[in-house]
Amino acid sequence: MPSYTAPVRDARFIVTEVLKIESHADLPGFESASADIVDAVLEEAGKFASEVLAPLNASGDAQGCTRNADGSVTTPEGFREAHAQFREAGWGTLSAPAEFGGQGMPHVLGFAVEEFMSSANQAFAMYPGLTNGAVGALLAKGSPELQQKYLPKMVANEWLGTMNLTEPQCGTDLGLIRTRAEPQADGSYSITGTKIFISAGEHDLTENIIHLVLARTPDAPEGTKGISLFVVPKLLVADDGSLGERNAVSCGAIEHKMGIHANATCVMNYDEAKGWLVGEENKGLAAMFIMMNAARLGVGMQGLSQAEVAYQNAVSYAAERRQGRALTGPADPEEKADPLFVHPDVRRMLMDAKAFTEGMRALALWGGLLVDLAEKAPAEEARQEADDLVSLLTPVIKGYGTDKGYDTATNMQQVWGGHGYIVENGMEQFVRDARIAMIYEGANGIQAMDLVGRKLPKDGGRAVQAFFALVDEECAAAREVEQLSELAGRVEKANGELKAATMWFVQNAMTNPDNAGAGAHHYMHIAGIVALGVMWLRMGKAAAEALAAGASDKAFYEAKIVTARYFGERFAPDAGALRRKIETGAEAMMALPPDAFARA
Amino acid sequence: MPSYTAPVRDARFIVTEVLKIESHADLPGFESASADIVDAVLEEAGKFASEVLAPLNASGDAQGCTRNADGSVTTPEGFREAHAQFREAGWGTLSAPAEFGGQGMPHVLGFAVEEFMSSANQAFAMYPGLTNGAVGALLAKGSPELQQKYLPKMVANEWLGTMNLTEPQCGTDLGLIRTRAEPQADGSYSITGTKIFISAGEHDLTENIIHLVLARTPDAPEGTKGISLFVVPKLLVADDGSLGERNAVSCGAIEHKMGIHANATCVMNYDEAKGWLVGEENKGLAAMFIMMNAARLGVGMQGLSQAEVAYQNAVSYAAERRQGRALTGPADPEEKADPLFVHPDVRRMLMDAKAFTEGMRALALWGGLLVDLAEKAPAEEARQEADDLVSLLTPVIKGYGTDKGYDTATNMQQVWGGHGYIVENGMEQFVRDARIAMIYEGANGIQAMDLVGRKLPKDGGRAVQAFFALVDEECAAAREVEQLSELAGRVEKANGELKAATMWFVQNAMTNPDNAGAGAHHYMHIAGIVALGVMWLRMGKAAAEALAAGASDKAFYEAKIVTARYFGERFAPDAGALRRKIETGAEAMMALPPDAFARA
Repeated sequence: MPSYTAPVRDARFIVTEVLKIESHADLPGFESASADIVDAVLEEAGKFASEVLAPLNASGDAQGCTRNADGSVTTPEGFREAHAQFREAGWGTLSAPAEFGGQGMPHVLGFAVEEFMSSANQAFAMYPGLTNGAVGALLAKGSPELQQKYLPKMVANEWLGTMNLTEPQCGTDLGLIRTRAEPQADGSYSITGTKIFISAGEHDLTENIIHLVLARTPDAPEGTKGISLFVVPKLLVADDGSLGERNAVSCGAIEHKMGIHANATCVMNYDEAKGWLVGEENKGLAAMFIMMNAARLGVGMQGLSQAEVAYQNAVSYAAERRQGRALTGPADPEEKADPLFVHPDVRRMLMDAKAFTEGMRALALWGGLLVDLAEKAPAEEARQEADDLVSLLTPVIKGYGTDKGYDTATNMQQVWGGHGYIVENGMEQFVRDARIAMIYEGANGIQAMDLVGRKLPKDGGRAVQAFFALVDEECAAAREVEQLSELAGRVEKANGELKAATMWFVQNAMTNPDNAGAGAHHYMHIAGIVALGVMWLRMGKAAAEALAAGASDKAFYEAKIVTARYFGERFAPDAGALRRKIETGAEAMMALPPDAFARA
Repeated sequence: MPSYTAPVRDARFIVTEVLKIESHADLPGFESASADIVDAVLEEAGKFASEVLAPLNASGDAQGCTRNADGSVTTPEGFREAHAQFREAGWGTLSAPAEFGGQGMPHVLGFAVEEFMSSANQAFAMYPGLTNGAVGALLAKGSPELQQKYLPKMVANEWLGTMNLTEPQCGTDLGLIRTRAEPQADGSYSITGTKIFISAGEHDLTENIIHLVLARTPDAPEGTKGISLFVVPKLLVADDGSLGERNAVSCGAIEHKMGIHANATCVMNYDEAKGWLVGEENKGLAAMFIMMNAARLGVGMQGLSQAEVAYQNAVSYAAERRQGRALTGPADPEEKADPLFVHPDVRRMLMDAKAFTEGMRALALWGGLLVDLAEKAPAEEARQEADDLVSLLTPVIKGYGTDKGYDTATNMQQVWGGHGYIVENGMEQFVRDARIAMIYEGANGIQAMDLVGRKLPKDGGRAVQAFFALVDEECAAAREVEQLSELAGRVEKANGELKAATMWFVQNAMTNPDNAGAGAHHYMHIAGIVALGVMWLRMGKAAAEALAAGASDKAFYEAKIVTARYFGERFAPDAGALRRKIETGAEAMMALPPDAFARA
């Protein structure tokens, strides 16, 4: 049986020493995020994740969800109780706004907690996770009436939420949506259509489920400009908040999936269901992107989360399992063999995972802080700057984070050798669960195009120029720190590759936009390397300062310095190769007719 | 439901035009491998694979194997009948020696057929595949009596074979084997112990199963120098060949695995089972390596096989599924959306897969030809040269082939978006099945160490020097071909990186052997890139010649030229990054104490 220990020490280091949360005490909500509170939240959340959620991960995978004859869905054993505890402990309300009953804590802290929950049990964590997205959309675009009716219950996790986008003929291309919304005399809409791949579409964790649904009104223009967003509750809610009759929305089937079995992925049938418009007609896409952006950061966190739990279980296996001898001579001569830890190739995989998970954690939590700053920084300029950065980094966190998260989970399974392929040992579940994160909330190819086609050119490249400057500054500062000067040089070089690739797009995408598309995925990975490089510079700097100040936890900080160096040695060189690939352009890639791909 | 079409055209191109099998007509067995026969064999094998085996792939995965109360094992529905057809058609005897009833055809042809069977149904193909390894060991090391008793039935696939190496405490490190073999008065041995992860350990496909088992005799020296190999039949075989009583070997359990569900992976209990020594006492490891080397090439082929079938199904999805518009403007304006094929990032994944599968097929089939030449070339020098090369390339074919095979299957699943995560669409099975190939028959880290620690230094580096020279020659020749000169430059550069990495090992592994271990995996990947590069040069040359000669199948050859170029553009640049990583050495990688990896 795999186990999970929340990386509380590491998260605390990032939140307090690297991101220096206390320096933002002037922001609303941050006043309550003192070092003590941060500690307590992380400790308690970690305990809940490892004690309540982790034990249900393998059993949830084995049991999956069941659709009953009446269309209701039963979650795996223990999920109802765990969700009740989750709700009572208030984990769902942590960074939700106080006016709707939330605790109003910083998102950066909410993100840290989200990682723990997702590592312990990704399928479980998705239930409240999707609710956060739905809450975000209602907060931003819902009328006061809708907010009043739904948000308090959703924030409290008494009702959970969903996002209904995909249809059989329409995944990435939301312009193809067919679900219809007919305006009714009472101001509501009658919603009819079929949605697929709806995570948490039906379940028994809460009495009510609040669906946010994309649909078209009768006169809507074609394509994405004719999409509206609706709130469609499973049970109708009276004005006094009491629950009324069942709405005409039902789960038609549960999908059989590669992983996240404990989350019910439903086909949802809307058959003249009652819905209410969120925001304006035909502006649904903008509202949907509010959900999506939050969800994308959350999905990036899932990539990290599966890498982290897989890493922990690979570390314990590498310490316990003895096979072969160190190349440098027996490490434990009194034993018949040395632990796997002595083997450089095992160490390579573990160090790769350590460098990725710790760097990615820092990046994702920085993303959380940027969300806070974009919302709450006192100066307009500071809000804009944070918004620019988090918009730029969202596809990187999602795309790079989940690509590498899956690779890392796969490598950690590899550490276990043949035993990693056996279901009962749990490593293969981490790989199966991690796989979905590369696909949903915009497949990683879409993230790459969002980055290159939308985020780069936006506002004349303001965001990416700010990012370049930030990286250069960090590198210049780190060059002065003895333990970091080599890494600073490597990150600077990687940043140079990113700049060169950006310039190449500028020069070559006008004549042929496929030149941008052909390099987008590689570009996203260079950006991921540079972003993690900056994080390692910051972590290295914080560690060097702590060591210079005579910190008692010396081993922790020394490990940061070594891992920072390793990141530079083993991650940074890929940036150059990726840039060279980008510069070969789209010609050969797009040259063949589709027929040339067929076999005979 | 996924489908499979054997890439007969491509295999024929490689066998006849690239490897020019007819130029080896002087070799025993090759006289019968005329172009006509090659065509017929490939056609028929392809038909068998797609019509008989492919339809059982998903159902076999869903049903898995069942261990019955009496310890017998039932394979999924249809497997018995399919195996009977396989046996009757003689697919198991294709490249087996004629003296034991085989058809004595070249291994290169046998390899091509093995790919088809494995693409169609990897779990099925493993049953006869493992038998090939057992046959090889008996051929090389078995006494004439053992050969006479077992080989004709095994070659005919009337009995299938297994390899019993792993034990609970011992996977990679065979020195830890505990299974005991006590000599008996009648010349046999009494075998007692537990073996795990035994593929095809028990099943209902054949009446008898012939286990090859590693065990220790009572006075055997410690470690790998004290291991002997035994043949242990499930049913005892009388001198007249008739089947006698049940031997004391039984299946204790079937493992629950991530994939290859239709192959029974068994815990095998030996309880004073009767066995017979193969070769000499304490020389079991050498005999085992005969099985292993053949098996490793076969496993490399599995990496290719899952990549290939996943590629085919991604290609058809990319042609049918319509989402979004081409960046260069609508490709099909009359439709609501363009097919996925127009999107550069989809094309990137498909071209990566095309370049990998076709290059890997050429490499693996070249490996097959080298096995033939090593056995049968008239001149001792030619045999030695072929043996050197195939020994060097075996860990590359296994390690690089399966790493990339898995990555490719994952990318092809990505082309399907959310639908790729749904079990019924079959893409996720390819990923799960492909995953095991990176682990078994020596995990890929072991392949990397075999390459760097054993194959490189052997005979003063004779094999790798010969490989470098061969690559340089191919590059020099291809520089003269207009369509290939760019690729030739890129492959030459990658070969330069491989040489530099080799030199770095020579200079740095003596002082610290961990420097070799720390770079071995990356080195294996550079070697894979260079080896595939050579194959693309050869394929490009053959295609250019065919085009110059006015071949009718113009589109096929033009696609080869384009794909060769793409390989150079998108695969070759990684060699430099990998070399740079290697040159950072083991220091940071090995610096941290194991405690530093734990979370708190």
